[in-house]
Amino acid sequence: MTSGAPAVSILRQGSYLVASIHNALDDAQMISFADDLISQIGDYRARGVIIDVAALDVIDSFGANTLSRIAEMARLRGAATVIVGIQPAIALAMVTLGMQLESLTCALDLEEGVEHLNRLTSTR
Amino acid sequence: MTSGAPAVSILRQGSYLVASIHNALDDAQMISFADDLISQIGDYRARGVIIDVAALDVIDSFGANTLSRIAEMARLRGAATVIVGIQPAIALAMVTLGMQLESLTCALDLEEGVEHLNRLTSTR
Repeated sequence: MTSGAPAVSILRQGSYLVASIHNALDDAQMISFADDLISQIGDYRARGVIIDVAALDVIDSFGANTLSRIAEMARLRGAATVIVGIQPAIALAMVTLGMQLESLTCALDLEEGVEHLNRLTSTR
Repeated sequence: MTSGAPAVSILRQGSYLVASIHNALDDAQMISFADDLISQIGDYRARGVIIDVAALDVIDSFGANTLSRIAEMARLRGAATVIVGIQPAIALAMVTLGMQLESLTCALDLEEGVEHLNRLTSTR
């Protein structure tokens, strides 16, 4: 079912975790990604999580919903979450389809995401 | 269909984009304005967007809805949006007609809008 390259990589950068989604995840992969990420927050005592979706050219409602749930779970584990790299076409689709995304904090790219987390967690 | 002067100008001011709507836009113009603005947020790495509607003497429900959607798309791309220059008569009409505008952040004029964005993005 899975191709050679992993669909998601989770890297540690200082007190943050950077999760990059490389290609579209099916629902089961999305759930196992969420589990991995939440357990790694504990392992690495992460203060913040950046989820990079720049490689995705579609985010369906399940995906968007899972991102919201990950952000909420991370918050309950003490980490702030920032989603980065939402493409213009995806932003348009999400808003047009009326997805509920108020709870997601977003930034343009990885650099802005780190800066945003620095502000949120006040670690400079 | 279009007159000589462009109906909208989008100018860059520091890390903000200032979009001024000079005269009433039809629905197609409104959509192409939204597309332009969202793509320029990426091009210029804008942290904030100010939409100046002071020149408008009417905002219909489609226009108001598009402003809300632009603000939400901008947020997904990492930029905060402030609407400035809503005239008293328009404010009255919007409230009387019961338009859903809770998601819009507003300020009196351009100067107040910039100040508001400074506070929102905490870059001084």
